[in-house]
Amino acid sequence: MTLISHSRRLRRTPFSDGVEIAGVKAYTVYNHMLLPTVFRSVEEDYRHLKDAVQVWDVSCERQVELRGPDAGRLMQHLTPRDLRSMLPRQCYYVPIVDETGGMLNDPVAVKLAEDRWWISIADSDLLYWVKGLAYGVRLDVLVDEPDVSPLAVQGPRADDLMAAVFGDKVRNIKFFRFEHLEFQGRKLVVARSGYSKQGGFEIYVEGADIGMPLWNALMEAGKELDVHAGCPNLIERIEGGLLSYGNDMTDDNTPHECGLGRFCNTQTVIGCIGRDALLRVSKEGPVQQIRPISIDGEPVPECNRYWPLHSDGQIVGRLSSAAWSPDFNTNVAIGMVRMTHWKPGTELTVETPRGPRPATVQKAFWI
Amino acid sequence: MTLISHSRRLRRTPFSDGVEIAGVKAYTVYNHMLLPTVFRSVEEDYRHLKDAVQVWDVSCERQVELRGPDAGRLMQHLTPRDLRSMLPRQCYYVPIVDETGGMLNDPVAVKLAEDRWWISIADSDLLYWVKGLAYGVRLDVLVDEPDVSPLAVQGPRADDLMAAVFGDKVRNIKFFRFEHLEFQGRKLVVARSGYSKQGGFEIYVEGADIGMPLWNALMEAGKELDVHAGCPNLIERIEGGLLSYGNDMTDDNTPHECGLGRFCNTQTVIGCIGRDALLRVSKEGPVQQIRPISIDGEPVPECNRYWPLHSDGQIVGRLSSAAWSPDFNTNVAIGMVRMTHWKPGTELTVETPRGPRPATVQKAFWI
Repeated sequence: MTLISHSRRLRRTPFSDGVEIAGVKAYTVYNHMLLPTVFRSVEEDYRHLKDAVQVWDVSCERQVELRGPDAGRLMQHLTPRDLRSMLPRQCYYVPIVDETGGMLNDPVAVKLAEDRWWISIADSDLLYWVKGLAYGVRLDVLVDEPDVSPLAVQGPRADDLMAAVFGDKVRNIKFFRFEHLEFQGRKLVVARSGYSKQGGFEIYVEGADIGMPLWNALMEAGKELDVHAGCPNLIERIEGGLLSYGNDMTDDNTPHECGLGRFCNTQTVIGCIGRDALLRVSKEGPVQQIRPISIDGEPVPECNRYWPLHSDGQIVGRLSSAAWSPDFNTNVAIGMVRMTHWKPGTELTVETPRGPRPATVQKAFWI
Repeated sequence: MTLISHSRRLRRTPFSDGVEIAGVKAYTVYNHMLLPTVFRSVEEDYRHLKDAVQVWDVSCERQVELRGPDAGRLMQHLTPRDLRSMLPRQCYYVPIVDETGGMLNDPVAVKLAEDRWWISIADSDLLYWVKGLAYGVRLDVLVDEPDVSPLAVQGPRADDLMAAVFGDKVRNIKFFRFEHLEFQGRKLVVARSGYSKQGGFEIYVEGADIGMPLWNALMEAGKELDVHAGCPNLIERIEGGLLSYGNDMTDDNTPHECGLGRFCNTQTVIGCIGRDALLRVSKEGPVQQIRPISIDGEPVPECNRYWPLHSDGQIVGRLSSAAWSPDFNTNVAIGMVRMTHWKPGTELTVETPRGPRPATVQKAFWI
């Protein structure tokens, strides 16, 4: 591991002071912002996330706000997911595609009202695509990045911790729905969502000034629940098949290649820019697709570049994320595999930096 | 300093292996890619850059390629700089603005041909803005990120090193012009440009496969010139007034606020999207502007967030970059200052993490 050089350009968040007091050991950069990656160790953080409750500074999930009479129309331009039945207070996971069907981001759309949306983005400046498009097609909509920084509360005790701060009504929020709940006189969007499979919430903290007060309130209220600062966990997200934009897929990939075909209503959607490009792939299926892959042997090193997948000397895919899973006692990985070799049980060879290893296509992710 | 967590998402470059062998100590992330920041120490790298010659992995200056009959028209949509007199083989520094006149990037435009341009970008996904716009206004142009990774050769001995690898004709390349020069049978764009005031070149390495061969050829040819791996140097760039997008300015700022009014032909330019928004500020001038600022006392700590500038208890601006300059024996800084306090010689107070310090607005940058 090397050091990170800090500068204004790698933006701090409203919670950075809390993150540092909690002993953050490593960062990554995500949407030009600091995202913690390790507190105690990736393994300890993993264990604790599955057993207790964590507060995550995911401010880097920046929002793109669409506001105005054409907000809904613009939102539908962006994604092949049919949004007609979506109601205010709902969140939808929406692949965003360009005119070639290539994925530009895989955010969560938050419908605040018919004429007001947030797009909670993965790691690319989606704001620029949306602004360029809105300007080019001359829609009546304002597009901007508001002062909103998500804070996630994740883990089996998330409901108890959130109830201690926001009251018991937080327990009634359904998956991918949100309510406006009060904290220090401010109404905040609180959704049941988050980048883990352990359950929990995302609080869309509007106004940087209440960032640390909320962080401290959660830490204080969670003392008996063994709350700890945490962050998206590499092992847990691979086990759960949570994809990472820029790692597991890029603008080279269609949603179908990413196994996100169920979020594409390519036959019925009206207005989506990438619809025509995706029509064939949605009918015939992709020629390569993301698969869970296990890797034999001792824990693999850090996966910081594509690891080629071989079969009989031919390249048939590549791994993009990999980690040792203590719970499943194997290396878990996410890979893109050609259809000739994607059947569950197919045995492949992965080229790791420490040499070739046997790898096996799995039927499902580990959760 | 904290550690950086590596992943595929923080892209390695064609030169990363060379950078690691050369002993890189710290990275930043720039356009989703690793950018080295320290080899020996920031101070030693600074001294060596000014005395000898360095090879910089600046692959993170990704290219946006515009190709097609409307390429020139699209390019002019992007910037208030009048491009009518620009010829192939020229490079222009071009502020890129949105419809409100806010800066989205400050890249170098490289005119390869009337119908083919590269935009060598600073740290934001300008590709998304350009693609969105090209799609929205329906221009006949393809927009993409090609496999081009710039490698910079900077320092007083840059001409000698480049001549040893590319031949003496490299010496005749004028500032912000380029030629196609051969390396291992490949024609590469070689421009006299770069992110330092020490002189040198940027080689637009087309094709990742020749990255390490070129890196090694430069290192081998430069042995007697004391060549060393280097990187954009914090101290030298502040002394020279080289702005950093995301540090010193964001999309909140107009080019005029950034002191880039001389690159804006707002009166005559035809087609620029931000032209109308910039017309008034170009006539009347901005109310705040970037200034060189000196800070008294011992070396300042790392500037990783805005440091407020005070006068008589009022906030009159903020610093965004600061470092101790061995050559000028003072702390050098870049700040945005309100017009009431921007006169050279104005004495202010800067709030650093180690307490308030006297600061003085300078007449010019230190070079």
